[in-house]
Amino acid sequence: MSDRAPEVRLDFARASRTGLDEAVLCAGKSTAQLETILSRVRDAGRRILMTRLDDAAFAALAAEWRAEIDHDPVSRTGFFGAPARSAGPAAVAVVSAGASDAPVAREAERTLAFAGMASETVFDVGVAGLWRLLDRVERLRAMRVLIVVAGMDAALPSVVAGLAPAAIVAVPTSTGYGVAAGGETALRAILASCSPGVVAVNIDNGYGAACAALRILAASGAATRRP
Amino acid sequence: MSDRAPEVRLDFARASRTGLDEAVLCAGKSTAQLETILSRVRDAGRRILMTRLDDAAFAALAAEWRAEIDHDPVSRTGFFGAPARSAGPAAVAVVSAGASDAPVAREAERTLAFAGMASETVFDVGVAGLWRLLDRVERLRAMRVLIVVAGMDAALPSVVAGLAPAAIVAVPTSTGYGVAAGGETALRAILASCSPGVVAVNIDNGYGAACAALRILAASGAATRRP
Amino acid sequence: MSDRAPEVRLDFARASRTGLDEAVLCAGKSTAQLETILSRVRDAGRRILMTRLDDAAFAALAAEWRAEIDHDPVSRTGFFGAPARSAGPAAVAVVSAGASDAPVAREAERTLAFAGMASETVFDVGVAGLWRLLDRVERLRAMRVLIVVAGMDAALPSVVAGLAPAAIVAVPTSTGYGVAAGGETALRAILASCSPGVVAVNIDNGYGAACAALRILAASGAATRRP
Amino acid sequence: MSDRAPEVRLDFARASRTGLDEAVLCAGKSTAQLETILSRVRDAGRRILMTRLDDAAFAALAAEWRAEIDHDPVSRTGFFGAPARSAGPAAVAVVSAGASDAPVAREAERTLAFAGMASETVFDVGVAGLWRLLDRVERLRAMRVLIVVAGMDAALPSVVAGLAPAAIVAVPTSTGYGVAAGGETALRAILASCSPGVVAVNIDNGYGAACAALRILAASGAATRRP
Amino acid sequence: MSDRAPEVRLDFARASRTGLDEAVLCAGKSTAQLETILSRVRDAGRRILMTRLDDAAFAALAAEWRAEIDHDPVSRTGFFGAPARSAGPAAVAVVSAGASDAPVAREAERTLAFAGMASETVFDVGVAGLWRLLDRVERLRAMRVLIVVAGMDAALPSVVAGLAPAAIVAVPTSTGYGVAAGGETALRAILASCSPGVVAVNIDNGYGAACAALRILAASGAATRRP
Amino acid sequence: MSDRAPEVRLDFARASRTGLDEAVLCAGKSTAQLETILSRVRDAGRRILMTRLDDAAFAALAAEWRAEIDHDPVSRTGFFGAPARSAGPAAVAVVSAGASDAPVAREAERTLAFAGMASETVFDVGVAGLWRLLDRVERLRAMRVLIVVAGMDAALPSVVAGLAPAAIVAVPTSTGYGVAAGGETALRAILASCSPGVVAVNIDNGYGAACAALRILAASGAATRRP
Amino acid sequence: MSDRAPEVRLDFARASRTGLDEAVLCAGKSTAQLETILSRVRDAGRRILMTRLDDAAFAALAAEWRAEIDHDPVSRTGFFGAPARSAGPAAVAVVSAGASDAPVAREAERTLAFAGMASETVFDVGVAGLWRLLDRVERLRAMRVLIVVAGMDAALPSVVAGLAPAAIVAVPTSTGYGVAAGGETALRAILASCSPGVVAVNIDNGYGAACAALRILAASGAATRRP
Amino acid sequence: MSDRAPEVRLDFARASRTGLDEAVLCAGKSTAQLETILSRVRDAGRRILMTRLDDAAFAALAAEWRAEIDHDPVSRTGFFGAPARSAGPAAVAVVSAGASDAPVAREAERTLAFAGMASETVFDVGVAGLWRLLDRVERLRAMRVLIVVAGMDAALPSVVAGLAPAAIVAVPTSTGYGVAAGGETALRAILASCSPGVVAVNIDNGYGAACAALRILAASGAATRRP
Repeated sequence: MSDRAPEVRLDFARASRTGLDEAVLCAGKSTAQLETILSRVRDAGRRILMTRLDDAAFAALAAEWRAEIDHDPVSRTGFFGAPARSAGPAAVAVVSAGASDAPVAREAERTLAFAGMASETVFDVGVAGLWRLLDRVERLRAMRVLIVVAGMDAALPSVVAGLAPAAIVAVPTSTGYGVAAGGETALRAILASCSPGVVAVNIDNGYGAACAALRILAASGAATRRP
Repeated sequence: MSDRAPEVRLDFARASRTGLDEAVLCAGKSTAQLETILSRVRDAGRRILMTRLDDAAFAALAAEWRAEIDHDPVSRTGFFGAPARSAGPAAVAVVSAGASDAPVAREAERTLAFAGMASETVFDVGVAGLWRLLDRVERLRAMRVLIVVAGMDAALPSVVAGLAPAAIVAVPTSTGYGVAAGGETALRAILASCSPGVVAVNIDNGYGAACAALRILAASGAATRRP
Repeated sequence: MSDRAPEVRLDFARASRTGLDEAVLCAGKSTAQLETILSRVRDAGRRILMTRLDDAAFAALAAEWRAEIDHDPVSRTGFFGAPARSAGPAAVAVVSAGASDAPVAREAERTLAFAGMASETVFDVGVAGLWRLLDRVERLRAMRVLIVVAGMDAALPSVVAGLAPAAIVAVPTSTGYGVAAGGETALRAILASCSPGVVAVNIDNGYGAACAALRILAASGAATRRP
Repeated sequence: MSDRAPEVRLDFARASRTGLDEAVLCAGKSTAQLETILSRVRDAGRRILMTRLDDAAFAALAAEWRAEIDHDPVSRTGFFGAPARSAGPAAVAVVSAGASDAPVAREAERTLAFAGMASETVFDVGVAGLWRLLDRVERLRAMRVLIVVAGMDAALPSVVAGLAPAAIVAVPTSTGYGVAAGGETALRAILASCSPGVVAVNIDNGYGAACAALRILAASGAATRRP
Repeated sequence: MSDRAPEVRLDFARASRTGLDEAVLCAGKSTAQLETILSRVRDAGRRILMTRLDDAAFAALAAEWRAEIDHDPVSRTGFFGAPARSAGPAAVAVVSAGASDAPVAREAERTLAFAGMASETVFDVGVAGLWRLLDRVERLRAMRVLIVVAGMDAALPSVVAGLAPAAIVAVPTSTGYGVAAGGETALRAILASCSPGVVAVNIDNGYGAACAALRILAASGAATRRP
Repeated sequence: MSDRAPEVRLDFARASRTGLDEAVLCAGKSTAQLETILSRVRDAGRRILMTRLDDAAFAALAAEWRAEIDHDPVSRTGFFGAPARSAGPAAVAVVSAGASDAPVAREAERTLAFAGMASETVFDVGVAGLWRLLDRVERLRAMRVLIVVAGMDAALPSVVAGLAPAAIVAVPTSTGYGVAAGGETALRAILASCSPGVVAVNIDNGYGAACAALRILAASGAATRRP
Repeated sequence: MSDRAPEVRLDFARASRTGLDEAVLCAGKSTAQLETILSRVRDAGRRILMTRLDDAAFAALAAEWRAEIDHDPVSRTGFFGAPARSAGPAAVAVVSAGASDAPVAREAERTLAFAGMASETVFDVGVAGLWRLLDRVERLRAMRVLIVVAGMDAALPSVVAGLAPAAIVAVPTSTGYGVAAGGETALRAILASCSPGVVAVNIDNGYGAACAALRILAASGAATRRP
Repeated sequence: MSDRAPEVRLDFARASRTGLDEAVLCAGKSTAQLETILSRVRDAGRRILMTRLDDAAFAALAAEWRAEIDHDPVSRTGFFGAPARSAGPAAVAVVSAGASDAPVAREAERTLAFAGMASETVFDVGVAGLWRLLDRVERLRAMRVLIVVAGMDAALPSVVAGLAPAAIVAVPTSTGYGVAAGGETALRAILASCSPGVVAVNIDNGYGAACAALRILAASGAATRRP
């Protein structure tokens, strides 16, 4: 009954090729497709991260599936299966500019947590009140990767990149209105950053930023060990 | 001979209506049109600011006109007639993010100078090296108007606006490449600023920013007295 | 119970740095976040302006909070705490082109009022019926700042700036359809204005225009005194 | 020798179908193509209007052809063959906002002249100095068609359309820089005009505006009689 | 009770200046604003055309107002007061490409009808089936103005303009999806038309096209006589 | 000496995988790179089509290379090595709207010719003069593939697709100015075509259209035989 | 009662001109219009494909019509009348990158099926897991036409076109968020493909891709025979 | 004499804050500014990387400066002072899709080399000929960071990211024409990649990608030791 979507093919070999487990972007998929995916994951004895699983999509799943998913409504993520065991102190901080950016920041944290990577959070340090950021500089300078989440004018990644030597993965968010243009301005400002070495992912893509952080940390041998 | 462009009509009454003298945007005008304008200004016993007067356009003017113009190639401005007499200490600072922004910053300064308004300059304080800006905060906080000139990601106006109570007139510049998009990204970042009360003018429009500063200072009764 | 959003950090020092009190943009924030903010503001013995607080967001707040907020549905603003005491005659006029621009115009007025700054309103003076504007020219020429609110082709700021010496803060609105493009055309027309010294804020950003006016008036020593 | 471009096919029947003679847009065509066209026009005993014939393209034509063309460098138009005989007083005025718009305005006039339609010109009446326009209102109200040429914010067509009952054909121009975006902002402002009944043609398309005027006047039986 | 919107100011002199009666764009206006407008129109003994009055906005009006309005849901227009008396045979045809364009075409017809101008309709003559158009050529050639309504690729105005001498007012529509981009592609295709003399109005602006037709016909002395 | 560009790697196996020989896009490549490519092609005893080889790039090649290239300046193509032998009558026609589209049309023809595929040309049949196209309908209906080349509003592919059953490969061109936007409007109009089954390639990509035609004809067993 | 929409005119001759039966795009049409169309089709003894017939539009039809339609909710297609009889083995494969692309892929299949053309489906072969595609290469190389459906970065058509000689009709989909921009990025990536001979249709236009395939196969004499 | 540009302020402390030495973007700077920068660098006993130093800008420098710069015309980079000493085997590969991408790839290599970081190059592995890439998979899987340089449709980063676990820093290039849009399509395709963990820098920004690689490797303790 859960295999009503023959068009679904999973890529269980991804982890061995890329170090990243498969995840499923739930937006744009039907309930039938999602349940087929979960069924196959369960049958294979695996676990999977679900992203963009909003309250309505979660509620549409059969109760048996909902019972097995750790769903976080703010970040719209679901854990199907247990997260990997975390190893060692946080090497990543997720830094965000405003309270409206919290869902995206939390998507990054949850993705890291599912992969067994601890992270710190540094909230609401937008550059309009620079002291909030300057108070944290020492902490930021201790991290290997900084995921910087910012909407509107996205000035934060440029400022952070000028203060710390870490890899800077910036996530533009769709926060704002008018010229903010659904995150397009934040994205372009990040890519035009006057600070060298800032890199960007898609708008609101906290998941992708976390994957980039996992690739970076794997490069340094600090990647998580899976259960 | 200098009146070969019958389509030119000047607006000498502008100053009495708006407090701003007429200026002439030279880009897009033929030499015949420019010389006609100068001729009419001279005949009326007036003076005029010329903007976007690049080396080629200046060189194309007849020698008699060139001799009467104080031309600055960096800012592409010309003074036809003497600047107004400056009165009192600087109430405006022109703050710029990078060396490439110098032409626009200087256009603002020259426009202010022609109107008799002294200004300070604060160069090369881009947020990638934040200490350069923090060193100047006290000076910036003493100004009534800050003209902030920045290209690329234009993070500077947001940071400055969080540090000083002045009126903040931001000028996006066309500095940069790729996503900088000829200043479009800087403009949009400025308009989406997370710092309240930042206002913008057109890309590379140092002249317009200076006019806005003159309107603002006139509002406070600090405007220049003309000779 | 109201502190369920640890990601919220307020910037109570903003006023001392910039002369502008903190405000909260309610769009994009959850009810939990808004109530946390209000709780902290109350605990600090302060007051705060709420913008983009639409009927649904207001209704979602707990009754105890709603009782303490002066909510204006047209402008979608809320006053949490008393407005500053107004001092002296109006130095600002809010001029709008059409009846559809009223919500944005009113957001500007309410922001000024909360800061204790009186303002005049000049409604429905779009240039299609120019006499409506010409009738008011003397009144406009008496103001220090003109906040000009216009959508569609936004011809009004150019015309006003040619008639009065005040600082002109133009607010493009999302009024219109098709090529009006949610206010993008109005914004670009304003920035390309043939009248020198016009400045712009983001689309529909009546709040930002009022903040700019407060900065400008502070520059001239006319700013409000707070209770 | 002049028929080196077999890909050229002319549409001599256009006038009988649409009332407009064929014209040739010279930009993007090779000298070989232009000379082939002229050769065929001459062989057919006809005349043709050449548009976008800039100095370089004109100079590249063989001397025999140049001798037969009345070339106007400002508007980049050429008359190959005599203009139609003009009949009666001007029913069209070409109104332009700034001196930089003169080439486009003149392209419209020359197109009308080639078709035997007299026109008036009203130059440099941009709305930044509104009195220049108000002085001419009575004259504008006497016309059947007003071709209004404006760049930058293109506020002029909206204001004119509110003052006169004529058909208003607006031509956006590429005058300006930055957000003016090569005329795109002027075009969109015109199409979003708050004045009803304004119509637009392509950016810098003085030729097209004149053709529209000819269609409009033909509709009223006032079209020219050709020699 | 119906004068709850002090921001409303009507322009009853518009007809004497421009030949077009005032109309009200209902989208973006509150019920209070609409009822205030109707009240003032009634008090002045006048009539008014309402556009973009969709079913929901119409239903929100008080019953007393609804009873006096001739509302057409397809075109979303309302007649408050009687249409002008029509005079003579149709000089305008409204030509549309597809059935989805019917609401816009009908808005044009209703606007003409309210002004007392008869019109013909020519439906569903998109160029994918060219014979549908060629069958009507003689009828189209008899008209003074052709309002051509087309979405998607908007090829129809170019083809029609090559077949008939009338004034061609093209209305792009938001019909289509993907690259049709809400009518933007249709608009740009119309403005880039290879047929000379085609003019455009805003996307879906059947009202504006009709106003342009009224201006054109007034130019030829064929305008309606009002009751 | 000709192998100065170690970054060049050719894909000689392309033909066996896809049926299309490798070609080289010369724009953006240095003379050193082009000569390295030619050297390797010669060493492998093969032939290659060069596209976007403008006069300057061709002239910059060493004389020994120029002597072996059949260069066509209009289409900016070069044949290095002999074209494939043509087999049978033309199954493809290249149809173009205006004389300015000739270079793109010719690039398609030359690409077909190099692959040994005969084609017909149908020039200057833009829809502004519809009879030019209607005269050719029978010929068009006899073809298997129609490559339709059109700029500006690109109405031609829609009309052609309504008249003939062939595969329709449309090539937008950068002909035009203003809203034509370098071919963007033509492209979008083609993709939004009201005629079903029209497909598009990139702007000015006559080469790509010919490759598509070769794929289509290969599908039907009509592909060329190579020498 | 079903002929309430006089603006509808069908083009029953389309098949004889182009080989494609008329279809009806249901989005943007009223229930009255759809029922009028069905009524006329039935009266003419014909059949018709309905596209973009979503659940709500289908449910709004009268029961008598619903009973005669084979409606597929995933692809939003309806068959009114029997599909053509299929002839021979599949010459077309519909290849899709991700599960979210299934509705568009299925619209292509259903369109082919209604025309009597068998097709194969190859699902979920996105390039992030390249082995899924490489496993199928032999099957893909056996096809005459490959309809490749892909959203987001749409890398799949480029890769497929490098592996197989078939005609490649790529369909960008609106899958994705942020920079995916409703399919615009996928479309542009397809048109900029580094693999020669890829052609594109509009975003999400599975119907159009199938029509292109039918034209291509008709060109090779493999078209379906109708009942 | 070399200190003619008072607006220049260098940030020699950048390395201690961020691990990256200061570099100078030469585009947009005057010769006077560049020579002032070099003079200050020399006076401080430091070295600096010059980017976007094209042949003309290099030739404009005084001979004394040119003699001290190692200028590479392909990548437009200059080394003023000796590169850092390289340590250990390459941990970074620079992978590029086509020969036209070589300048950007080489800018990345040169930036890495100046910082003392060895890198490998993998050229011309565009996905149109997939075997070229598959041949190199083992080599790519051995790297810690892959800088992937690609223009046009930029399908390469998605494919590479599916095959290797490294950090993937993608650089879109301005290679291509038409819809390639100066690299905008490549950028957007990269950001919309279906492969998780791909990050992007600005168009043509090989320098920025190398800086990101340096930050990433510093994170893993593999950064270079400077002389």
